[in-house]
Amino acid sequence: MSTGFLAVDSGGSGLRAVVGTTDGDGHGPLARRDSPEPVRTGPRGIDPGHLMGQLLPMARALSDETGVTGFGTVVVGAAGLATLGDALRAELPGALARELGVRTVALAADAVTAYVGALGPRAGAVVAAGTGLIAVGTDLTRWRRADGWGHLLGDCGSGAWIGRAGLEAALRRHDGREGGSAPLLARAEERFGPAAGLPGQVYPRADRPAVLGSFAPEVAACAADDPVAAGILRAAARHLADSAAAVCPAGGEPRVAVTGGLLRMGDPLLVPLSEELAKRLPRARWTVAEGGPLDGAVRIATGLATGSLALPSDERMLWVTTVPGGPGPVGP
Amino acid sequence: MSTGFLAVDSGGSGLRAVVGTTDGDGHGPLARRDSPEPVRTGPRGIDPGHLMGQLLPMARALSDETGVTGFGTVVVGAAGLATLGDALRAELPGALARELGVRTVALAADAVTAYVGALGPRAGAVVAAGTGLIAVGTDLTRWRRADGWGHLLGDCGSGAWIGRAGLEAALRRHDGREGGSAPLLARAEERFGPAAGLPGQVYPRADRPAVLGSFAPEVAACAADDPVAAGILRAAARHLADSAAAVCPAGGEPRVAVTGGLLRMGDPLLVPLSEELAKRLPRARWTVAEGGPLDGAVRIATGLATGSLALPSDERMLWVTTVPGGPGPVGP
Repeated sequence: MSTGFLAVDSGGSGLRAVVGTTDGDGHGPLARRDSPEPVRTGPRGIDPGHLMGQLLPMARALSDETGVTGFGTVVVGAAGLATLGDALRAELPGALARELGVRTVALAADAVTAYVGALGPRAGAVVAAGTGLIAVGTDLTRWRRADGWGHLLGDCGSGAWIGRAGLEAALRRHDGREGGSAPLLARAEERFGPAAGLPGQVYPRADRPAVLGSFAPEVAACAADDPVAAGILRAAARHLADSAAAVCPAGGEPRVAVTGGLLRMGDPLLVPLSEELAKRLPRARWTVAEGGPLDGAVRIATGLATGSLALPSDERMLWVTTVPGGPGPVGP
Repeated sequence: MSTGFLAVDSGGSGLRAVVGTTDGDGHGPLARRDSPEPVRTGPRGIDPGHLMGQLLPMARALSDETGVTGFGTVVVGAAGLATLGDALRAELPGALARELGVRTVALAADAVTAYVGALGPRAGAVVAAGTGLIAVGTDLTRWRRADGWGHLLGDCGSGAWIGRAGLEAALRRHDGREGGSAPLLARAEERFGPAAGLPGQVYPRADRPAVLGSFAPEVAACAADDPVAAGILRAAARHLADSAAAVCPAGGEPRVAVTGGLLRMGDPLLVPLSEELAKRLPRARWTVAEGGPLDGAVRIATGLATGSLALPSDERMLWVTTVPGGPGPVGP
């Protein structure tokens, strides 16, 4: 029997948990469980009961599998923590203490776990870009974030942003307005049928950002031969660089990473992106992400368990609490 | 007792009906009734039963008031006719024939009644711009339309478009991204509270375009001193001119009118708009709209009743049918 940590990533595609230890030969992650069910968001925000209901059986199974029977530290990276995390902050630490004897709990915004997964505990900026887009940066004294405002108010340069701009260009061509693109119109009609039916396929859907984002790869596919599509990707690259620049620390040679599904767009986006980043942040080193959000949660947990966490604390970004009733590792 | 026409405007703010005659001294509209309840849209599109349920008592009251006891011609201008008008086209003419003895029925898109209200039966282009935006033009042989695709796919330059761009600029400033505006951020926080709460005030709403559009006047109010706000209105003016140019007939000296609530934005929009229209359509004569959509429905009804309607027919734009069973005036 040995004690260890539990690192959790809760997002739109479900819950993932890793157990590990920081002592002896088993240093680092030992085993992992996934649940495909996203944690519910109710009127009080992210539902702590629903999260615990999924996490407990996963934790017990991981305990049986690895022989790690006590979790001194639990780190939960959660999408929506900044704006929807009140109930989680109020109830999760106590519930984890009661059910699993946990003493130190950290709640991290998913953008923070993405950051730490990508760069580790180093100064820099990470742009997490998929259907949406958020940038997080730190100089190791405070966190900064930019965008992440959703498809109507921002997420500039995201998959939904690119796809929406592509569909607008298709309809401009359909109408005979300036700025239209015949190749994008052809792909939009191939994908969604005649243009007149497009509104009916977008507006009634609850997952409008995903529907818009599903057209982004078509924009990338047209970019080599179509200046309108290439212009959309250039503008998206500029928006990504704007967000990176807004959160990147001023001094030193900060690292900058872009993570997330948007990277699958390939060169049509990545070539203008590297140019725009070089223009906007000439001193930054653009690096490949070392890992994903779950890796980030593991790194935070390891840092907390060994008392070596060198990241700033902030209720909405990375919040560490020691549950009363027993001496536990103390956060920064 | 004399026969006449019924002209109807059905839109988001309810149903309005006018009765009139084309013979004798009472030429033109005689009386009007309004109903504040918008006609329902169901799974089959605009609900013909719900429209008839409201229209019949209005028609009977108008008949009592004016002494016009028979309606040879009924014109219904309806929002959404192009995409949601199938049930209306299938059922309304028969229902009007049964209940009111009507012989000629015209169904017009609200953009067409707006056009005819603004310019009469003349060649030109009309941009109807409020929360949304649609442009309609004709050379008197066919109708053309541009935009009207809604707040995610188009409505470029509309109130929702301007307000959304203004809120994005406010949040850019909040994040420290390029292109932000301090005056717009101040007005957004005055209006919606701290920026962090803005997504929660927009995304859960069913009337998101209206919420976005409600911020458009703040953009106009900032434009004199804020180059970001002025740039948004300049871009909106360009989009309006794009749509006007796409539908405007090529020959002659076409008339161009802009109608709708967006005109209330005043000079901050109208000055760049007149410049952009002059650039894009140098031969067009920008004119003030003569009337609104209900005036357009009256003009179409008068033209049909007197056999002088000189507008092109088109199922989705202006569709005229003579109900079998009696000789009635014939449309174009």
